[in-house]
Amino acid sequence: MNNFIFQNPTRLIFGEGMIAQLANEIPVDKKIMVTFGGGSVKKNGIYEQVISALEGKDCIEYWGIESNPTIETLRKAIEVGKKEKVDFLLAVGGGSVIDGTKLIAAGLLYDGDAWDIVLKGEAQETIPMGTILTMPATGSEMNNGAVISKKESKEKYAFRSCYPTFSILDPTATYSLPPYQVACGIADTFVHVMEQYLTKTNESRMMDRWAEGILMMLTQIAPLIKENQQDYDLMSEFMLGATMGLNGFISMGVSQDWSTHMIGHELTALKEVTHGASLAIVFPGLLRTLVDKKKAKLIQYGERIWGITSGLPETRAQQAIDKTEDFFRSLGLQTRLSEVNIAEDTINEIERRFNEREVACGEDKDVTGIVVKEILLKCM
Amino acid sequence: MNNFIFQNPTRLIFGEGMIAQLANEIPVDKKIMVTFGGGSVKKNGIYEQVISALEGKDCIEYWGIESNPTIETLRKAIEVGKKEKVDFLLAVGGGSVIDGTKLIAAGLLYDGDAWDIVLKGEAQETIPMGTILTMPATGSEMNNGAVISKKESKEKYAFRSCYPTFSILDPTATYSLPPYQVACGIADTFVHVMEQYLTKTNESRMMDRWAEGILMMLTQIAPLIKENQQDYDLMSEFMLGATMGLNGFISMGVSQDWSTHMIGHELTALKEVTHGASLAIVFPGLLRTLVDKKKAKLIQYGERIWGITSGLPETRAQQAIDKTEDFFRSLGLQTRLSEVNIAEDTINEIERRFNEREVACGEDKDVTGIVVKEILLKCM
Repeated sequence: MNNFIFQNPTRLIFGEGMIAQLANEIPVDKKIMVTFGGGSVKKNGIYEQVISALEGKDCIEYWGIESNPTIETLRKAIEVGKKEKVDFLLAVGGGSVIDGTKLIAAGLLYDGDAWDIVLKGEAQETIPMGTILTMPATGSEMNNGAVISKKESKEKYAFRSCYPTFSILDPTATYSLPPYQVACGIADTFVHVMEQYLTKTNESRMMDRWAEGILMMLTQIAPLIKENQQDYDLMSEFMLGATMGLNGFISMGVSQDWSTHMIGHELTALKEVTHGASLAIVFPGLLRTLVDKKKAKLIQYGERIWGITSGLPETRAQQAIDKTEDFFRSLGLQTRLSEVNIAEDTINEIERRFNEREVACGEDKDVTGIVVKEILLKCM
Repeated sequence: MNNFIFQNPTRLIFGEGMIAQLANEIPVDKKIMVTFGGGSVKKNGIYEQVISALEGKDCIEYWGIESNPTIETLRKAIEVGKKEKVDFLLAVGGGSVIDGTKLIAAGLLYDGDAWDIVLKGEAQETIPMGTILTMPATGSEMNNGAVISKKESKEKYAFRSCYPTFSILDPTATYSLPPYQVACGIADTFVHVMEQYLTKTNESRMMDRWAEGILMMLTQIAPLIKENQQDYDLMSEFMLGATMGLNGFISMGVSQDWSTHMIGHELTALKEVTHGASLAIVFPGLLRTLVDKKKAKLIQYGERIWGITSGLPETRAQQAIDKTEDFFRSLGLQTRLSEVNIAEDTINEIERRFNEREVACGEDKDVTGIVVKEILLKCM
């Protein structure tokens, strides 16, 4: 086990009807800006619950934080927040609204252009924020990460901001999500877990079991959710699993490999591929490229998640990768670049960007531009 | 899944050499009282590391917090702390030192007798504290619970206090522990997990897998630790597992049954049975008494932890219980009251105490005095 420091202060408030607890969670005398995406929360009753719980508080609303939130939108939100002397933020939405709000939280205390904060990779200070999660996927509701895009230059980068002081998760909020978003959320959660798991063997028996526990749960519930997206227990598992998949609980003392996310962000930035969908494309190709170095863990994963218990090591590893791609396809997602009309010019541009920024990811920091190109060619 | 609220703010600092980080974790200008048990930390090098890391800080030392810390000892510590205007506590030891320090943290801000706080079940306010864990078992290093004894009346009760602001876990600190204490620590951790797991089925696939992950890890490492207690990876798993077994991570949205702990505390209070050892005696008897209502979960547990995959449901449940008792015996622990010379008079006294306090534990609050007696008779 590697040395590590873990801390996660977010207060998780989970269950049907828990939005009513909101008022107790925000200190009195705060000037609150409530941030939203599009209008879906007005259709599923979440908006009314939030407004009712905030009765008597000093609030303004900011609408229009888009998927893959852009610095262009967030600059405007920061301007409004500064003018209105906002000192508490409440994000109501999915990972994009929460991520965008994490930049607003930092931008409100920063004099320059908020894109600087993204490029620095870390916010120096933030105002406090809470969240009401409506779409499980990114885990942003219980971590300090956020990913922001710049439309102008087609860039998309992660940076560290604040942990939400609280996050309210009501599984019934997911009942009305478009099934494609649920599929992307499941894929996103699956890959989050895999990027903290599919690296080296024998680092921690317990962390392996916890990661595998989330993976097993996801593979069990995914087909059932397709049948009935209004099942409270299924959607509870999905919602809690997405949060647990990226809040630090399964990465204590073990190696991590965030290559798939780094490459996926480029596909989203350049070609507007939905985040979860980009991972379903990149991850099988990454495994096929790095199969030799990841073989031992692939065999463990294949055995424990997919029941692959016999065959030559090479065959078992390949079967585990095939099962992974099949799983993404069973969600209704595409798993090849050719299916989303992405060709070699985009691959070359991504390689160029990795080389230019001298990025090297992976558990051994050896996934450089040239390896990224190899991975993407395997995704064709 | 049941509704729940989860929050755990403790900063976990894990790994060999991490005690050197201590100075960064305590705010400047604090008057620190460092609390210790007996002198074992002077033999294994921990004391020197702590003193060296605290160089230049304003510290006093308080020695002598005993196993199953008593209000009689802690009153004296509180008196010293008040006199010296202590405003930060650092517990260096196992669960007893940490639990005792949690009462000191509350007692320093309380005007009356600190036993009142224990009887109330909850501290109103506390001064901040950190811990350096030397013996994995209780999980107290990352939760807000503590158990305090009153020698005078042979009572032992749990109460809620503060979460440590930080806890430093260096697995090498466990190398020199007496093997009996390691065995008791493994049993304690095993039963903590079981009391959050062995209740109802189908509440959460993920929480079940996480609990089972700790149980599987413990059953794997226990025989290996017996062979080599100086194996860093094994002792890391044990140390991290003990913390994860009782920090709220595996109890989200699921039922709990703390009957075994409640009964075990009485055995310790009345007959000075070591805590972990008391659980190894009570737990199999509890399962044998409540086998009918816990049957479905026992079958799941038997299959996933002990590989019991065939037979009649009754047989499978009984085999799972037998395997559990065998596991405790394999640790070198006794599992029967008769082995520790406890007879029916003690059982009657425990029943009387449960009846007098009108305690009812268990996931359905039906483990009352009469059931406790039945359980203890099955432990003979």
